Amino acid sequence: MNYTFFSEFLMVTNYMTLISIAILIGMFFVINKLSKKIKFNKLMILSIVLGIGLGVLVHAIAGFPEDPTKVTWLTEVSKWYGLFGYGFMDLLKMLVVPLVFVSIVRVIMNLKQGENLGKLTGKTIVMLLGTTAIAAIIGIVVGNLFNLGVGHEAIVKSGEIREVTPIVDTIRGLLPSNPVNAMAQANVVAVVIFAGFLGIAVKRLNKKYSEIIKPFVDLVEAFYKIIISVSITVIKLMPYAVVALMATTIIDRGVTSILDVMDFIIALYVSVAIMFIVHLVIITLSGVNPIKYLKNVSKPLILAFTSRSSLGTLPVTIETLTDNVKVDQGIASFVGSLGSNMGMNGCAGIYPALMAITVANMSGTPMNFSFYIMLLIVITISSLGIAGIPGTATMSVSVVISGMGMGAYFPLLGGILAIDPILDMGRTMLNVNGTMASAIAVASSLDKIEKDKIS
Amino acid sequence: MNYTFFSEFLMVTNYMTLISIAILIGMFFVINKLSKKIKFNKLMILSIVLGIGLGVLVHAIAGFPEDPTKVTWLTEVSKWYGLFGYGFMDLLKMLVVPLVFVSIVRVIMNLKQGENLGKLTGKTIVMLLGTTAIAAIIGIVVGNLFNLGVGHEAIVKSGEIREVTPIVDTIRGLLPSNPVNAMAQANVVAVVIFAGFLGIAVKRLNKKYSEIIKPFVDLVEAFYKIIISVSITVIKLMPYAVVALMATTIIDRGVTSILDVMDFIIALYVSVAIMFIVHLVIITLSGVNPIKYLKNVSKPLILAFTSRSSLGTLPVTIETLTDNVKVDQGIASFVGSLGSNMGMNGCAGIYPALMAITVANMSGTPMNFSFYIMLLIVITISSLGIAGIPGTATMSVSVVISGMGMGAYFPLLGGILAIDPILDMGRTMLNVNGTMASAIAVASSLDKIEKDKIS
Amino acid sequence: MNYTFFSEFLMVTNYMTLISIAILIGMFFVINKLSKKIKFNKLMILSIVLGIGLGVLVHAIAGFPEDPTKVTWLTEVSKWYGLFGYGFMDLLKMLVVPLVFVSIVRVIMNLKQGENLGKLTGKTIVMLLGTTAIAAIIGIVVGNLFNLGVGHEAIVKSGEIREVTPIVDTIRGLLPSNPVNAMAQANVVAVVIFAGFLGIAVKRLNKKYSEIIKPFVDLVEAFYKIIISVSITVIKLMPYAVVALMATTIIDRGVTSILDVMDFIIALYVSVAIMFIVHLVIITLSGVNPIKYLKNVSKPLILAFTSRSSLGTLPVTIETLTDNVKVDQGIASFVGSLGSNMGMNGCAGIYPALMAITVANMSGTPMNFSFYIMLLIVITISSLGIAGIPGTATMSVSVVISGMGMGAYFPLLGGILAIDPILDMGRTMLNVNGTMASAIAVASSLDKIEKDKIS
Repeated sequence: MNYTFFSEFLMVTNYMTLISIAILIGMFFVINKLSKKIKFNKLMILSIVLGIGLGVLVHAIAGFPEDPTKVTWLTEVSKWYGLFGYGFMDLLKMLVVPLVFVSIVRVIMNLKQGENLGKLTGKTIVMLLGTTAIAAIIGIVVGNLFNLGVGHEAIVKSGEIREVTPIVDTIRGLLPSNPVNAMAQANVVAVVIFAGFLGIAVKRLNKKYSEIIKPFVDLVEAFYKIIISVSITVIKLMPYAVVALMATTIIDRGVTSILDVMDFIIALYVSVAIMFIVHLVIITLSGVNPIKYLKNVSKPLILAFTSRSSLGTLPVTIETLTDNVKVDQGIASFVGSLGSNMGMNGCAGIYPALMAITVANMSGTPMNFSFYIMLLIVITISSLGIAGIPGTATMSVSVVISGMGMGAYFPLLGGILAIDPILDMGRTMLNVNGTMASAIAVASSLDKIEKDKIS
Repeated sequence: MNYTFFSEFLMVTNYMTLISIAILIGMFFVINKLSKKIKFNKLMILSIVLGIGLGVLVHAIAGFPEDPTKVTWLTEVSKWYGLFGYGFMDLLKMLVVPLVFVSIVRVIMNLKQGENLGKLTGKTIVMLLGTTAIAAIIGIVVGNLFNLGVGHEAIVKSGEIREVTPIVDTIRGLLPSNPVNAMAQANVVAVVIFAGFLGIAVKRLNKKYSEIIKPFVDLVEAFYKIIISVSITVIKLMPYAVVALMATTIIDRGVTSILDVMDFIIALYVSVAIMFIVHLVIITLSGVNPIKYLKNVSKPLILAFTSRSSLGTLPVTIETLTDNVKVDQGIASFVGSLGSNMGMNGCAGIYPALMAITVANMSGTPMNFSFYIMLLIVITISSLGIAGIPGTATMSVSVVISGMGMGAYFPLLGGILAIDPILDMGRTMLNVNGTMASAIAVASSLDKIEKDKIS
Repeated sequence: MNYTFFSEFLMVTNYMTLISIAILIGMFFVINKLSKKIKFNKLMILSIVLGIGLGVLVHAIAGFPEDPTKVTWLTEVSKWYGLFGYGFMDLLKMLVVPLVFVSIVRVIMNLKQGENLGKLTGKTIVMLLGTTAIAAIIGIVVGNLFNLGVGHEAIVKSGEIREVTPIVDTIRGLLPSNPVNAMAQANVVAVVIFAGFLGIAVKRLNKKYSEIIKPFVDLVEAFYKIIISVSITVIKLMPYAVVALMATTIIDRGVTSILDVMDFIIALYVSVAIMFIVHLVIITLSGVNPIKYLKNVSKPLILAFTSRSSLGTLPVTIETLTDNVKVDQGIASFVGSLGSNMGMNGCAGIYPALMAITVANMSGTPMNFSFYIMLLIVITISSLGIAGIPGTATMSVSVVISGMGMGAYFPLLGGILAIDPILDMGRTMLNVNGTMASAIAVASSLDKIEKDKIS
C-alpha cells in the first residue's frame, strides 16, 4: 500500500514541506507577539525582512537549485505559503467590487452644488496619463543609459505575433452592458460607470424626490460604513500575509535566473526610484509635505510591493488616502478606482519602455528621435487601451512591442519574463504610488484635501 | 520600422477611416445644435436619414464593393461607428436587469386586492402567442403570393442538421436556479420569475408584517425611481446612436448582395406592414386612437429598427408605454419584459413562415392545407420554446425548418442570411410594436390604461 | 413530409410518452384533492408511494428493459417527469444564495454580547467532522461484514488515475475573492465567509454608529422575512415534485442493473440505518426526545431522499430546524449552510468507506489495522477538502481510493456507479440528518434550542 497519492492530495510529500510550514507558523506567533508592542508600520517592514529571510532560508536548504519548480517540496512549500499570502489577497479582492460600487455612488451623489463631475474625471485621466508619459520617458532614458539588450543581439526567424485586441473592442468591453455581470467579472471600470449613472440620478432626484429616494441614499451610507469596517478588519492581517507573500516570491525563482538579467532588474528599479522622486515632486507641488506623505503611505506601498496586485491593494489605498493623507473620501475612491485600471506608471509606463529599448537593441532596430516620439505615443495610448485587462504588464509590453513593428522579436524577452515577479513588485508599488500622487494632485486642485491635518 | 501593427491596434490603417470618423463626429455636432431647436421625434427621424446618407456616402467612396468585409478601411469604419452605436446599446442593456427586476417586484407587490396575477400572466401569454400566430399566417400568405424560392430550386446532397435544444431543456433553462447567476446572464424570464416570487411574498406579508418589510418596499420604490431616471438620461443620447447604427448597418452589407434577394426583402417588409396594421386594429379595438398611438411610439420603434435589439429597446419601450401611452407602469413592465423574450411577432412569426415557404419551394416540398396547419402550430409553439435564446430569429428558423422535416435544406438559405441585418430591422421593430399592442390590449382589458390622457 | 424533428423538439415521439405524462398529471390532481384533507407529512409519504408505483408501472409497460436509456420514449418520459421534479428543485435552489447570505449576516449581527462566533464555528466543524468519522467507521465495519467485492476479484492492467485537486487549491477556491461571483457560482462557503465579515462589522459598528447602519440592518431583517415567505410558498409544491422525482429515478435505472450490485445496496442502507440510530443517540444526548424529533423532520428527509440534493434541501432543512425543532434560527442557518458543504455523513463518510473496502477486496489489497486507521484519516480529512465540489460523493470516493494508493482499480467500480442514484437517495438523506443532528447538538451546547416547545 502506498500513500503517495494521499500526500500529493495534501501537498506534503516531504518532511521538509512540513518543517517549512512549521517555521512560517512560528513566525506568525512572533508577529502576533510583536503586534502588541511595536507600531503597525514598523511591523510591516519587519514582515518583509522576515519574509525575505524565510525565502532565502528555504532556498538555501534546497541547495539553491537553478530551477526551483523542479524541486517538488519547494513547489509544495510555495503552494502552502501562497495559501496564506494569496488567501489574504482574496479577502482584500472580495472588498473591491462592493467598495468601488458603493463609494463611487456615494462620492457622486454627495457632490455639492457647483462641483463638476466632468472636471473631476478629466483631471483624473490627465493626471494618470500624464504621469504614465513621464514614466515612459524615464524608462526610455534609463534603458538607453544601461544599453539594455546590447550584447544579446539575436536573429529571430519566425516570430509568433501575439494577437492584440483592437482598442475599439477594449473600450466596448469596459462598458457595463450588464451591471451584475460586470460585478461578477470584477470589471472595475464598468462598475464605476454604472455606479456613476446611479450617483448622477440620485443627485438630480434629490431636489424634488428626496423623500422617495432616501432609503437608497441611507442604504448606500450604511453599506459604505460597513464595507470600510470590514476592510479595516482584513487589513489587520496584513503583516502575516506579507511574510508569506515575500517568501513565496523568493522560493519560486532561482538565484541564477535572477543573475542572468541583473542589468534589466537594476535598470527597472533605478527607473522606479526616479519616477518615485517625480511623484514626490508632484506631491510637493500640490502643497503636501513629502516627508509626511512618506510617513503615512507605507501600508499600501508595502502591500503592493509584496502582493503585486494593484486591484487587491485598492481597499488599502483608499483607506490610507482618506484616513492618513486626508484626501476627501470621494476623490480617493474615484482616482483610486480608475488608477488601478488605467495609467499605471510602472506596468504600462516604465516597463514597456524598457522592454522596447531592449528588443530594439537585441534585434538591431535603429532608434532615432522619431522612434522615441512614436514609442512615447504608443505607450501612453495603450496605457488607456489595456485598462482592466488581466496581466496588464505583459499585455502592455506585447501591445507596445507590436505597435512598434517589432512583434516578431517578442520571444527574445523570455529570460526577462521568467523573473517577472521580481520586476512586478517594483512596478506595482510604483502604480499605486502614481495613483496616490494623482489623487493628491486632483484633490489639491479641487481643494478637497485637508493638508494641515496630515500628521 | 513599420507602424502597421500600431495602426491595426488603433483600427485606423487608412486616412479614409479617419475622414469617415470625422464626418460622423461632425454630424454629432449638427444633431447637438438641432436638439435644442426641434422636437425629439423629428430629430430621431432626421437621425435615420442622416445615418442612411452617411452609410451610402461611405459606401460610394469605397466604390460600392460587392463584399464590404474585404475592404479593410470599411471594416474599420464599421467598427468605429459601431463603438458609438453599440456602445449606446450597451448602456441601455445595462438597465435591463435592474429595471426588469425592480419593476416586476414593484408591480406585483402593488397589485391591489382582487387583482389577479394569474389572470395577468394568462392574458399576456395569450396576446403574445396569438399575435405571433396571426403574424405566421400573414407570412404564409405573403410568402406564397411572392412565390418565394421559386426559380431557385436546388438539390442538396447532404445537409447539415442543426442541433436543436428540446423544449423541455429550454423551459428548465428559464427557471431561476440561482437568481444572481440569472441576473449575470441577463436571463430575463428567470429574473421575472424570481422577482415575481419576491413580489408575491411582499404582497402577502404586507397584511401582518408591513412594519418589518417596509425597508424593502421603500428601497424598491427608491431604486425604481433612480433606474427610471438613469434610463431617461441614457435615452437622451439616442439620436447620436441612431446615426451611427444606421450607417454601420449599411456599410456592413454590399448593395449587390441586397439586390440578389430583393424579393425576399420586399415580401418581409410587406408582411411587416400588414401585421403592423393588424396591431393598429388591435389597438383600436382596445379603445386607443391609433393615430395618437403612432404619434407617441416613434422612440421605441426607431430604436428597435436601428439597433435590432428587442431587449436593448426594453427600457425605452417601458418608458414610452408608461409616459406616453399612459399604460399602467406595472402592466408595461410585465408585458414588456415577457414580450422581449417570447411571442416575437417579427422574429418568431413572420420570418420563419417566409423562410419555410422559401425552403419548401426551393426543395420542391409539396405544400397542402395540412402543411400550412402544421407550420402554424410549429411556429407558435416554438415561439414559446425559444424564449430568451440569443439570435432568436435564426434559431427560430432553424427550429421551424427542422420541425417541418426540411432541416437538410437549411444551407439553401445562405443568401438570405447574408443580408440578415436588413431584415432584422423590420422584424425587431415589429416585435416591439407587437409587445406594445399586447400591452395595450392587456391593460385595456384590466382597465389599467388612462386612454383619455394620451396626447 | 416527416414530422420527426418537430416531435424530437417536443420530446414526444411516441404516444406512450403522452400517456405517461397524462398519468403524472392525473396524479397531480389526486394530490391536489388530498392536500385539503390529509396532513402534509402523510401526503409526502403518499407521494413517495405514488412515485415508486408510477415508476414501476412505466417500466413494466416498457417490458422492464435492461438498459432504459436505450428505449427512446422512456428517456422522454424521464425528461418530462424531470421537468416537474428538477424544475421544483431549481426553485428551491433559487433560494439558497439569498437565504444563506441574509441569514448568516442576520445570525452574526444579532449575536448577543458574550456569544462567541469562533466557538460556534469550532463546535460546528467538530460535530460535522466527528459524525463523518463515525460514519466512516460504520462503513468499514459493515463493508467487512458483507465481504463487499469478494468474489469479484479482477486484475486491472492500466488504470486511469483521476486527477485530484490538492487540498490547498480547494481551500483557496472556497475563499470569496469576489462576493458577486461567489453568489453567481453558488459557492456557499464563500457566501458564508463574506456574509460573516459583514455580520461581524455590523455587530461592531452597532455600538457607536447604530443610526448610520440601521438601514442595512432593517433591510436584512425585511429581506429575511421575505425570503422565508418565498420558501414556504415553494415548499407547498413539494408533494407534486416528490412523485415526479421518485418516478424519474426508477425509470432511469434498469431492474437488472440493480440486482447485480444488490449486496452493495443493502450494505449501504444497513450502514445508513445504523448511522441514523447514532444520530438519534446524539439527539437524545442533546436532550431532545428522538420520537418527537422524528415526527418533525420528515419534510427535509423525504425531500433529500427523493431529490438527492443536500444544497437544494437546505431551505427546507433550515425551516424545519427553526419552526419544528425549535433550534435558534441563527444556529440552524449556520450549521445548515456549512453542513450542506462539508462533513457529509453519507456522501463523504459511509460511501467512500464501503467503496474502499470493495476495491481492496476486488484488487486483493491486504487490509490490516494500519490500513483501517489510515482509511479513517483519509476519509475525514478529505470530507473537509472536497467541500463545495459538485458530485461530492463520486469525488469523495475518487480522492479516498486514490489516497489509499488504489487509484488504478477505480474502473472496477463501474457497476456500482451505474446505479448511483439508488445509493444517492440514502446517502443524501443521511447527510441532511447528520446536519440536523449536528445543529441540535451545537444549539444544545450553546443553550439555543427551546426543547420544551417541540411538539
